[in-house]
Amino acid sequence: MQMFVERWKAKCRIQNQLVRMLLCEFVATAFLIFVGLAVEVQAQFNSHPANSSSIGWGLALVFAVQMAFPLSGGHLNPAVSLSAWSFGNLPFAHFLLYSIAQTAGAFIGAALTYLIYFDKIAEFDGGARAVYGPKATAAVFATYPGPHLSLLGSIIDQTSCTAVLCFIIGIITDKHNRIPTVAQPVMMGMMLTVICMAFGMNAGNAMNPARDFGPRLFTLMAGYGWEVFSYNSYKWFWVPILCPLFGAIVGSWAYQLIISAQIGPTEEEEERSLSPDQSVTKS
Amino acid sequence: MQMFVERWKAKCRIQNQLVRMLLCEFVATAFLIFVGLAVEVQAQFNSHPANSSSIGWGLALVFAVQMAFPLSGGHLNPAVSLSAWSFGNLPFAHFLLYSIAQTAGAFIGAALTYLIYFDKIAEFDGGARAVYGPKATAAVFATYPGPHLSLLGSIIDQTSCTAVLCFIIGIITDKHNRIPTVAQPVMMGMMLTVICMAFGMNAGNAMNPARDFGPRLFTLMAGYGWEVFSYNSYKWFWVPILCPLFGAIVGSWAYQLIISAQIGPTEEEEERSLSPDQSVTKS
Amino acid sequence: MQMFVERWKAKCRIQNQLVRMLLCEFVATAFLIFVGLAVEVQAQFNSHPANSSSIGWGLALVFAVQMAFPLSGGHLNPAVSLSAWSFGNLPFAHFLLYSIAQTAGAFIGAALTYLIYFDKIAEFDGGARAVYGPKATAAVFATYPGPHLSLLGSIIDQTSCTAVLCFIIGIITDKHNRIPTVAQPVMMGMMLTVICMAFGMNAGNAMNPARDFGPRLFTLMAGYGWEVFSYNSYKWFWVPILCPLFGAIVGSWAYQLIISAQIGPTEEEEERSLSPDQSVTKS
Amino acid sequence: MQMFVERWKAKCRIQNQLVRMLLCEFVATAFLIFVGLAVEVQAQFNSHPANSSSIGWGLALVFAVQMAFPLSGGHLNPAVSLSAWSFGNLPFAHFLLYSIAQTAGAFIGAALTYLIYFDKIAEFDGGARAVYGPKATAAVFATYPGPHLSLLGSIIDQTSCTAVLCFIIGIITDKHNRIPTVAQPVMMGMMLTVICMAFGMNAGNAMNPARDFGPRLFTLMAGYGWEVFSYNSYKWFWVPILCPLFGAIVGSWAYQLIISAQIGPTEEEEERSLSPDQSVTKS
Repeated sequence: MQMFVERWKAKCRIQNQLVRMLLCEFVATAFLIFVGLAVEVQAQFNSHPANSSSIGWGLALVFAVQMAFPLSGGHLNPAVSLSAWSFGNLPFAHFLLYSIAQTAGAFIGAALTYLIYFDKIAEFDGGARAVYGPKATAAVFATYPGPHLSLLGSIIDQTSCTAVLCFIIGIITDKHNRIPTVAQPVMMGMMLTVICMAFGMNAGNAMNPARDFGPRLFTLMAGYGWEVFSYNSYKWFWVPILCPLFGAIVGSWAYQLIISAQIGPTEEEEERSLSPDQSVTKS
Repeated sequence: MQMFVERWKAKCRIQNQLVRMLLCEFVATAFLIFVGLAVEVQAQFNSHPANSSSIGWGLALVFAVQMAFPLSGGHLNPAVSLSAWSFGNLPFAHFLLYSIAQTAGAFIGAALTYLIYFDKIAEFDGGARAVYGPKATAAVFATYPGPHLSLLGSIIDQTSCTAVLCFIIGIITDKHNRIPTVAQPVMMGMMLTVICMAFGMNAGNAMNPARDFGPRLFTLMAGYGWEVFSYNSYKWFWVPILCPLFGAIVGSWAYQLIISAQIGPTEEEEERSLSPDQSVTKS
Repeated sequence: MQMFVERWKAKCRIQNQLVRMLLCEFVATAFLIFVGLAVEVQAQFNSHPANSSSIGWGLALVFAVQMAFPLSGGHLNPAVSLSAWSFGNLPFAHFLLYSIAQTAGAFIGAALTYLIYFDKIAEFDGGARAVYGPKATAAVFATYPGPHLSLLGSIIDQTSCTAVLCFIIGIITDKHNRIPTVAQPVMMGMMLTVICMAFGMNAGNAMNPARDFGPRLFTLMAGYGWEVFSYNSYKWFWVPILCPLFGAIVGSWAYQLIISAQIGPTEEEEERSLSPDQSVTKS
Repeated sequence: MQMFVERWKAKCRIQNQLVRMLLCEFVATAFLIFVGLAVEVQAQFNSHPANSSSIGWGLALVFAVQMAFPLSGGHLNPAVSLSAWSFGNLPFAHFLLYSIAQTAGAFIGAALTYLIYFDKIAEFDGGARAVYGPKATAAVFATYPGPHLSLLGSIIDQTSCTAVLCFIIGIITDKHNRIPTVAQPVMMGMMLTVICMAFGMNAGNAMNPARDFGPRLFTLMAGYGWEVFSYNSYKWFWVPILCPLFGAIVGSWAYQLIISAQIGPTEEEEERSLSPDQSVTKS
């Protein structure tokens, strides 16, 4: 009977490795956005006031990253994929395909949240599907800046948040830190939780073009109207698309050149680390 | 003296392995429901407003799973047992017996919560034991849908939640992910926390026929009246019994065929993994 | 220079092992109660409404247990020591000495919390030091039952909570579960958090004669008056002293006889586990 | 392409090890204060009421310590560096340089928080930048004691908090406890969370001269006026500078002499631990 599963798995296995990786990114991003936006719905309607949505997003990321880690690396974010390209770990064409898969995944994730909470949203807004006003629910799906935020402020915000994100990813994945592979997804979740707790107030820290554009496109198609793009006189929707790409490069290179370059082993240490006993005695 | 314990343990050891496993499922489910419902009581009476009931349920699951993991697998849920059957890991008769043990455990768990919080409930409702109205406490034990939820919405909700649950169980237990056995119960707890944070608002995410039916039966016997079943014109009580069974199959197979099939090792890799050094160098 | 520390450490090392162990229990219990009661002060004055006091107590226990784990076992609780005695792991005389050390530690811990928050308490009650009324602060130190709780209810509550506590300690420390020693203090903390989240509402889940009696004695000496003992017509103060002792025996033996006896290895398995390869392949 | 990164890293590598270490302390402290103060901003404006700022600070510390751990030890705090000097692990000149690097890092961290939340602060106070009154925001950056706190109380508070901090650092880093290096930053975060939950109410538990003085200096330069130093008739600003230095010595030596000296191995055990098999069988 166990063989029954294995036979079906063998049948469903995609031969092309790139397609397998894109599927992984697609499903994992859809999962992350489905669960994360559902957390946002509960926060918006305040159903369990003691639930921290920052912890909810963090835990959603743990499983999303774990799912895609072994095959595609678990980027789930075009900005992260771009920084992987800048390090030479991903061909540029793959970066483009990853971005499309991630954005499509985020679109589907938003649709799933919309489906599961359709009745709740309908009860709240009576079918209005508004971006502004007391019945607005669009901010559950895509991010919208607080009224206090200037355009310059929003550019600084999205660039800085994503730089911090990629700086911490650098810490977690740095080989010198010897963090076990199985612990890395959990630490990624802790990273997202603290970033949400620190930087969520300005503009919901999207830090991810796919996470923001995919659900925004979905809300357009779900009847929220063109305001999802024209919000703030067109001075917002492109910010969480472009700034994270720039911030990711800044943050990940900053980690490599400022910290990793310093903690890296000297040549002498490197030679010693080639001896097999080393890893046994140190771990 | 230590031998004194060991002698008693030897005496209490049940010879039949199936009975041992059923006892484990029974006790672990009773533990989970006892602690989880007590968390619900505190949330309902808001005694510590900063306590997240999602985290409480998650932590209760950690120990419930850990308890039953080594012997019976720690299903604690007929839906999970059904998916284990569908993979060929559990005979159908065992699935039925597991379900009975789990439901009986959930019944006893609810009784224990009722016992320990009897004075509190009595103070609040003056002995009314109501399903509806300002003195209602039935929702502490079994789940009841929010007033916004349509029948179709509740079916989608219970199916989807349980599918997500079993999808994540797939991630955690997938051998390719090499998550250590001792870490798996903790990750199961993190899973339940995030699911509660994301999907608790519609209908309390039962996702478990035993967790819902056992306590519902208990409330019937504890004087809450037939309304515990007739609630919403009989358009609810069977939803968290049937839909999770279906959702579990969908979610666990989806993980196997969409993700696990892709990340699984190629034949080439499998051969290499037979060499004993592999596991040493990778871990 | 490092030798300078080592020389002082050597001088401060107590020769008698029992005295060393008692010192450890004393200091670790004082630490737990100092930090835990400070968490209670913040909860009472609601200074950071989002802080869960259940998580605060749990984290305090992590470090208290870790501190005393290697030498004295980290009981920090006469009820836990009693169950260790009942298993033959602690002579009865040691149980008595442990209990005294733990109670003295809890007394000192309460004094330290009083010292650090003296100004805050003075500002709040103007020096009244009351057990009852709007200016009462005694419940920060020792536990007092909610007004809903009957005497029978409080006996059931304290016995059940402590039984659950010792049941979970059984799970965490059971050798069959192979939880690494370094992870056990963290799991103890998770245990206390979930118990506080589930069972704190009735009477503050003392579950520990030292944790309750030590601070109660301190409040008597700090000017709270004899009411700290006469509260509720003398129908409370002895409940969290006696019931935890009984509950601990029930819970820890229940785990051994119901669960551990079943998951324990068969003789056949035991023989196999003697082979050194076993541990390597399983871990 | 990967070589492209490595070449740049080699170019950026600083030859002088002390400078490398100071850079690490500088960047890690700036990171900690940037993220931690951003958490404070969110707490002040209560944007996500369920977010515990104690958990936010703890998670920020996890990554700050992890970043600097392998090279400079991750002190991030002159008080911690002083206690390292007192143990003979750091030359006095290095302690002074570390302190300057940490204070400069905290200054830059405060500036980054100010930059990213400039629009929010401006909206709230209309440019007033006040230390007192309903539009005060200075307490987001440096700590200010509660109105209940006397001078003696504030000295006791800052000394005790830092003593607890360094006592727990002793527990976490004690070799006898065998806590794996990769787990130590996470436990440091848990430590900071519980200390914030227990001791934050009196005066915001700075426990760190750099964390308090650096941001205080920044607020002076950012237009908050001399009141940041003259607050409370000059009876505060030096308390979180001097008392933590004293408290750190007390706490770290107390751990070594009271606990570590007792749990340390006897000479006999030490000899046995020289055998290589030991570590394998115990871990």
